[in-house]
Amino acid sequence: MTELEAFTVDLAREAARVSLPFFRGRFDQQDKGGAAGFDPVTEADRAAEAAMRQLITARYPHHGVIGEEYGEDRPEADHVWVLDPIDGTRAFVAGLPLWTCLIALRSEGQPVIGAIAQPYLDEIFLGGPSGAQMLRGGQTHSLKTRACAGIDQAVISTTDPDLFTAPEAQAWARVRAAARLARLGCDAYAYAMLAAGHLDMVVESGLQVWDWSALVPVIEAAGGSVTNWHGEAADGSGQILAIGDPKLRAPALAALGAAALPGISTPA
Amino acid sequence: MTELEAFTVDLAREAARVSLPFFRGRFDQQDKGGAAGFDPVTEADRAAEAAMRQLITARYPHHGVIGEEYGEDRPEADHVWVLDPIDGTRAFVAGLPLWTCLIALRSEGQPVIGAIAQPYLDEIFLGGPSGAQMLRGGQTHSLKTRACAGIDQAVISTTDPDLFTAPEAQAWARVRAAARLARLGCDAYAYAMLAAGHLDMVVESGLQVWDWSALVPVIEAAGGSVTNWHGEAADGSGQILAIGDPKLRAPALAALGAAALPGISTPA
Repeated sequence: MTELEAFTVDLAREAARVSLPFFRGRFDQQDKGGAAGFDPVTEADRAAEAAMRQLITARYPHHGVIGEEYGEDRPEADHVWVLDPIDGTRAFVAGLPLWTCLIALRSEGQPVIGAIAQPYLDEIFLGGPSGAQMLRGGQTHSLKTRACAGIDQAVISTTDPDLFTAPEAQAWARVRAAARLARLGCDAYAYAMLAAGHLDMVVESGLQVWDWSALVPVIEAAGGSVTNWHGEAADGSGQILAIGDPKLRAPALAALGAAALPGISTPA
Repeated sequence: MTELEAFTVDLAREAARVSLPFFRGRFDQQDKGGAAGFDPVTEADRAAEAAMRQLITARYPHHGVIGEEYGEDRPEADHVWVLDPIDGTRAFVAGLPLWTCLIALRSEGQPVIGAIAQPYLDEIFLGGPSGAQMLRGGQTHSLKTRACAGIDQAVISTTDPDLFTAPEAQAWARVRAAARLARLGCDAYAYAMLAAGHLDMVVESGLQVWDWSALVPVIEAAGGSVTNWHGEAADGSGQILAIGDPKLRAPALAALGAAALPGISTPA
């Protein structure tokens, strides 16, 4: 494991130390969703991001940081950490242990290290130059996406079809009808299961840069791909298609095609 | 804890011992869904139910057993165990740790003890004459549903809106539009979160007797209710409404009313 990969694990453990005591406990929450619907942010989100930022500033003061809760510091730096302290805050407030802490390191604009961590399960899914692995209870398990003979054999996932626009929902319905099985409600944990070879495809939209940056190194190091709905690098369109077996990419893109937004360059 | 409650915990631990090694591992699976869609059953389902039946027969040979995988033995006995070794087999095959083992003891037709167990999380949600509690890592936490001021404040859940009939889906859409937040994809784990005071309402249909019997003692002992969509005792209609705060029952039933099936007596 490289120094920066080890530091990514340190960040995930620090975020877990801070956020886990709030889980299923009492905490303040505010609604930042407005007219778009209930979108909670909690003390746990803020405290976990603040703790990670503090570690980064102490260790790598020249690195940049982009975080969901506290915005951008030095976003044009060569190395930029992209943080979502709690992805799936709705799961968090409902007591469900599928929320995650997402950490990415971007080098010259490309995500090169990623971590998807679930503190209650004591799981960290890590991807980077040393490969893809899951750390749990002192043990390390290597991650590999699985082969899938065709879309009719695929187990697919999205968090909530109601989060799609109407054309996106139609595209999802086409993919779902073609697939073997669909699972809902997983937020970023679905991408971890894809990297581990339990799911074949994840289709989502509306993702911000801190929602998807961490997924890319984990899934690519495990043998899969993360793109927009045109098959291009993930970008500011927020439409994300994650695939375990490259064979699924063409039929998935064909099904999604009509709903794909124009590619949009990633902010910052 | 009564002798029968302690034995229920023994059954849950035995099912966990048998099923957990299959989770995220290699196992045989068959599709029992036919035209209705992919519905997997695995070696883990069968082995866990067989292990529980063996314990029951050895300890209480006069008790009856109804299980999802191996059918009915002495279903007219005074005491009948109702078993679903893996509720949420679709979650199980997708690597998601929200599948559960459901165990109920029926006495003279009424479920009097229930357990909702998640082996990977080491959690057993138990309800019965001694109250409602969650056992984890040698510790016991009492369970209590939470107050909810109105349906507009409620966090609600269903596993997958696509499992509803068209009128049921319309009823779900009405409830969802009125509620604060909806979570999907939880199978029976949602009922455990309701008993623990993290969710306010769960709405599902198509549940078999082994899917809902265990929920009743857990949720009732925690202060909530489990009924059909008419507000009557859960029955063979398979439509289940679980509520944490009694204040939510009237508005929920009003929203569901038009889609409620006639009450159907429970099989066996």
